[in-house]
Amino acid sequence: MTATTDARFMALALSLGARGLGRVWPNPAVGCVIVRDGRIVGRGWTAPGGRPHAEPIALAQAGDAACGATAYVSLEPCSHHGKTPPCANALIAAGIARVVTALEDPDPRVAGRGHDMLRAAGIEVTVGILADAARRAHRGFLLSRETGRPMLTLKLATSFDGRIATASGESQWITGPKARRMVHALRARHDAVLVGGGTARADDPQLTVRGLGVPTQPVRVIAAAGLDLPENGKLAASAAASPLWLCHAPDAPAQRKAAWAARGARLIQIDSDPQGRLIPQALMRALGAAGLTRVFCEGGGQLAAALLSANLVDELAGFTAGLALGAEGRPALGAMALDRLADAPRFRLIETRRVGADALHLWERD
Amino acid sequence: MTATTDARFMALALSLGARGLGRVWPNPAVGCVIVRDGRIVGRGWTAPGGRPHAEPIALAQAGDAACGATAYVSLEPCSHHGKTPPCANALIAAGIARVVTALEDPDPRVAGRGHDMLRAAGIEVTVGILADAARRAHRGFLLSRETGRPMLTLKLATSFDGRIATASGESQWITGPKARRMVHALRARHDAVLVGGGTARADDPQLTVRGLGVPTQPVRVIAAAGLDLPENGKLAASAAASPLWLCHAPDAPAQRKAAWAARGARLIQIDSDPQGRLIPQALMRALGAAGLTRVFCEGGGQLAAALLSANLVDELAGFTAGLALGAEGRPALGAMALDRLADAPRFRLIETRRVGADALHLWERD
Repeated sequence: MTATTDARFMALALSLGARGLGRVWPNPAVGCVIVRDGRIVGRGWTAPGGRPHAEPIALAQAGDAACGATAYVSLEPCSHHGKTPPCANALIAAGIARVVTALEDPDPRVAGRGHDMLRAAGIEVTVGILADAARRAHRGFLLSRETGRPMLTLKLATSFDGRIATASGESQWITGPKARRMVHALRARHDAVLVGGGTARADDPQLTVRGLGVPTQPVRVIAAAGLDLPENGKLAASAAASPLWLCHAPDAPAQRKAAWAARGARLIQIDSDPQGRLIPQALMRALGAAGLTRVFCEGGGQLAAALLSANLVDELAGFTAGLALGAEGRPALGAMALDRLADAPRFRLIETRRVGADALHLWERD
Repeated sequence: MTATTDARFMALALSLGARGLGRVWPNPAVGCVIVRDGRIVGRGWTAPGGRPHAEPIALAQAGDAACGATAYVSLEPCSHHGKTPPCANALIAAGIARVVTALEDPDPRVAGRGHDMLRAAGIEVTVGILADAARRAHRGFLLSRETGRPMLTLKLATSFDGRIATASGESQWITGPKARRMVHALRARHDAVLVGGGTARADDPQLTVRGLGVPTQPVRVIAAAGLDLPENGKLAASAAASPLWLCHAPDAPAQRKAAWAARGARLIQIDSDPQGRLIPQALMRALGAAGLTRVFCEGGGQLAAALLSANLVDELAGFTAGLALGAEGRPALGAMALDRLADAPRFRLIETRRVGADALHLWERD
């Protein structure tokens, strides 16, 4: 196989793997392609819920054709007995002759052992094909394994002067229907949607994915130190139907905790600072400990500013609408207490394009 | 000639005409292509300063080949004796057989008479080829003839939360060197660069086009009601070398007026409102009366908000940089006193693309 051929099949494995984004946590969204004599004989990606893994699905599809074939996997096959037997074993048992992977799995239960098992069985192993693309695709899983916190994408949808509402709070609609639809698609590719309590109070949002026919909804996470949330709003009404996690400070009123637990919400206690605000690092660590790998934050301005100031934002999705709201409008970001321009969190532009009437710009941490 | 062929040569005439943008005011930046038997035999565009016009330049290049040829002109040829003889006469005298134009010239001295003169001389005349593109190319000239005010482009270069400086006023640099270079190119395509007095005081800008080797500088216009401008700054030092127009309120101190006139600045009195601020409509009318057709406003926030609120902004060039400054940062736009989202000035997205490290989005009035 040439390097170009390897890259081509790995790109396919990565794009198959991406189908699982938002639906496989706490597992990685892996893709696998089995190639025999230049023909694709099996394709698989991590199933919703995280299992089966990509490799057994692709092997089952390949059947006897797997014998002597090459398997392209977007992450090192697992080597440990968890709820499923190790995928490395399955590849060996199927008679795979060569395994090509993009990255080593940093999970301490794997960390090279998958590759070692394959080599010990006489399989040729190539590691590192499209490693940069794979690191980006698996960013949430890698971050959660390496740092204990999930990847965080921040969405900002603003007027061209960076406002998210008029002074009176009117915010529907600044961006157009195509941008809003894309926001739903972005929600669906994340494990959870996160907003602050102020946004939950002001907008009474549902935070679900609508209009895209998705079978599973992302977890809805509200960062609300005092649990001061509308008891008759949409979140309360849907707490039992779709996962709702409420992150609160240690001193949140017991009565509110009990009431929200009774409605079906999961309560997660987060350390707070002397001003009573949730500590952003503690919030993200708790979400990582709960198994989330990809979190999509939609504001409001205070939460977004706190996450940016704490250097916790990995990707940024900016939608700019063609209207001006002026300085009285509500700002997209709250106070950040920056003294010097050099201290501002910086992002690298990945892409810019039109989405309906609005301009989209995607950035990642610099 | 087919319609496709006509459109192709007209597109060339438009792109030749665009070379004059910013250098031909108060004249339009016209382009002309002479085509004989399918071959281009002459090309011309309005010369710096506004004359000669495009047609005599192209005719001179064509020489005898103009006889029996088709002339493509991006605006109706002039019919009146000004500082040059009418271009319609020149086309007739050269023996041109057919004239194709994009638009009628709204100037009351022309307004169809150029086309009539050509027809009366037996020339076949086709009007309206690429009319929409021509209206955009000639927007400044058309607006100044039709409304008495120049076209206004507003530039905003902000952090992704719409800020132009930190709370302490630090603003160098938010956008990168490629965006800054593009701003110089945009200045060069306008007749004048406009900023408010606050920006002149805070930034001590030169407002010249640098690094592009342009032979003529745009006029520098400062909207400073009270003429409170730094007497030892870059504008004062360069007032004699490059045009500097100061727009002031009727009650600006006579001593300041005299001092700035002595430095070489041109003083233009503008009506002010009861709060002493220049009236945006009066400002733009005065700039139109002075002959400007294309004005490039670079802020600050108060002036930009006043121009937007008065519905005077025709195009918008937004540069978004990949950094966050937070709510204490200086906003790109000042107060606009908008009560309802529906009242916000709206713009249509023309284009979005990367410029170096920054995202550029170009909009035009909706």
